Amino acid sequence: MQHIPTLPIIKEAGEKIRPFVHNTPVLTSSYINQISGADVFFKCENFQKIGAFKFRGAINALLSLSPEEKAKGVATHSSGNHAQALALAAKMNDIQAYIVMPETAPAVKRKAVEGYGAEVITCKSTLKAREETLEKVIQRTGASLIHPYNDYRIIAGQATAAKELIEEVPELEAILAPVGGGGLISGTALITHYLSPETKVFAAEPKGADDAFRSFRSGKIELSENPNTIADGLLTSLGDKTFPIIRDYVEDVITVTDQEIVVAMELIWERMKIIIESSSAVPLAAVLLEKERFADKKIGIILSGGNVDLRKLPF
Amino acid sequence: MQHIPTLPIIKEAGEKIRPFVHNTPVLTSSYINQISGADVFFKCENFQKIGAFKFRGAINALLSLSPEEKAKGVATHSSGNHAQALALAAKMNDIQAYIVMPETAPAVKRKAVEGYGAEVITCKSTLKAREETLEKVIQRTGASLIHPYNDYRIIAGQATAAKELIEEVPELEAILAPVGGGGLISGTALITHYLSPETKVFAAEPKGADDAFRSFRSGKIELSENPNTIADGLLTSLGDKTFPIIRDYVEDVITVTDQEIVVAMELIWERMKIIIESSSAVPLAAVLLEKERFADKKIGIILSGGNVDLRKLPF
Repeated sequence: MQHIPTLPIIKEAGEKIRPFVHNTPVLTSSYINQISGADVFFKCENFQKIGAFKFRGAINALLSLSPEEKAKGVATHSSGNHAQALALAAKMNDIQAYIVMPETAPAVKRKAVEGYGAEVITCKSTLKAREETLEKVIQRTGASLIHPYNDYRIIAGQATAAKELIEEVPELEAILAPVGGGGLISGTALITHYLSPETKVFAAEPKGADDAFRSFRSGKIELSENPNTIADGLLTSLGDKTFPIIRDYVEDVITVTDQEIVVAMELIWERMKIIIESSSAVPLAAVLLEKERFADKKIGIILSGGNVDLRKLPF
Repeated sequence: MQHIPTLPIIKEAGEKIRPFVHNTPVLTSSYINQISGADVFFKCENFQKIGAFKFRGAINALLSLSPEEKAKGVATHSSGNHAQALALAAKMNDIQAYIVMPETAPAVKRKAVEGYGAEVITCKSTLKAREETLEKVIQRTGASLIHPYNDYRIIAGQATAAKELIEEVPELEAILAPVGGGGLISGTALITHYLSPETKVFAAEPKGADDAFRSFRSGKIELSENPNTIADGLLTSLGDKTFPIIRDYVEDVITVTDQEIVVAMELIWERMKIIIESSSAVPLAAVLLEKERFADKKIGIILSGGNVDLRKLPF
């Protein structure tokens, strides 16, 4: 796919992936409404397959391949949710997945990916080593590269979460999603623009990895250098496919501190009885920080995932 | 209410409490289906108001009072979910609640109950002190006693959880719920007998508080003495109203160790991304223990609640 996903493309993605994904529930909390002053609808992608929205993009990208491409497999480098998402999507379609992981990745993550039948190739943990190793794997196998976010097929897949939210909860005045590489927020902003143009889309970002905030203001991609935040799913820089969409369709980027993220995370755990990872708590932290902006408004928040080490909780 | 709740009585309870309770979602997990060999439907009462099924019984009992009784208020002794449930139910109906709590109850629980506008009366932590203090409160105020489980109005209210489950998921071959004082399991067994008589109901109980198991086998109420289990919602003995229903309508009582409970609890947290308290994990532990009994069967499990101290997890 060589251009920004159109509405028909995103609708087609929604149809294509429907048999494979969960149409995740939308939950509310009267207590969170009370303390935020807003009417908040949470789209629970922590209940998605592999516990994160990443599965939507991965399965969509994979289903977009030709039979010849499928026969050669798919490849990526990731130690996080995208690795598991691509491995499971490949397994469901009898496609071979090659996942390059840094040797520093936790054994449990490696095992999860191997459990889906993927071939794991380990390398040094530098970005250079990962990219070189991935390049070698692709040369050896002919596999198709599936980038975790800078890919229009991925963006179209991630857009389906907000699509379901908008279809279930009409007339939202704002939708918030976290921003890391920008796959989720760009898909969210696009589909919201198409289906509900009066709804404003906000990106929420940790202050310790505020490259999207800086990029949004400078008008060009600013790199994420030495990011330092508890929200470990949001460390990467934007891509040349995600940034222009964010620049054109996102209303604003709101940054929050790690302390604000932990407060929001615990609030969701305590009051909603659901498990979210720290990255998922960033949008609620933004709503609680900028209360006047969202007061009395009907807003949607995409809870991006729930993959957290239960033995290392921040509270 | 002087007799075992009939089907019309439970249906009426369902109608009466509908505006106040959540019709909680039913969730599934393909991984848990895979390892259990069964097809398991979880009724998520951890998402109920105050985070536990107890709210159903409390609000039903309260709505069953006459205007004169309502004017004098309601009273109970509890340091757990029933205290919060009754306090919130009372607040929603502008009724005064008097809650007797042991002085050893955590400050956070006392504050939660007071936050709902209830008057908290503290006493020594012995059962005798609690009962005497409650008696005094009732003499002073004329408030109606709302027992946490040994009350047909409570049983009818708790029955509505299984009623919703049966209506949403037809043809269940078994339903499991935890047993403490027996309010939830007796209500579950009754409504299942009425609506789906071919469905077998199982009580799941910690080995460290196996009074229901012993009572079921001896045919009379055996007391829970020095119970010792992580499932701290299941410590009490059965009552003279709950036991006969359990004896007559429950298929069997299955006991599990604390270790088995913790494994099942972590499985639900990890795989379903929802927060349940240890008592809620007991039925899944029973299913995993007695795999052959439930293999290839379509079964329902009532997840009773999600009120857990996030700083004191057993894993």
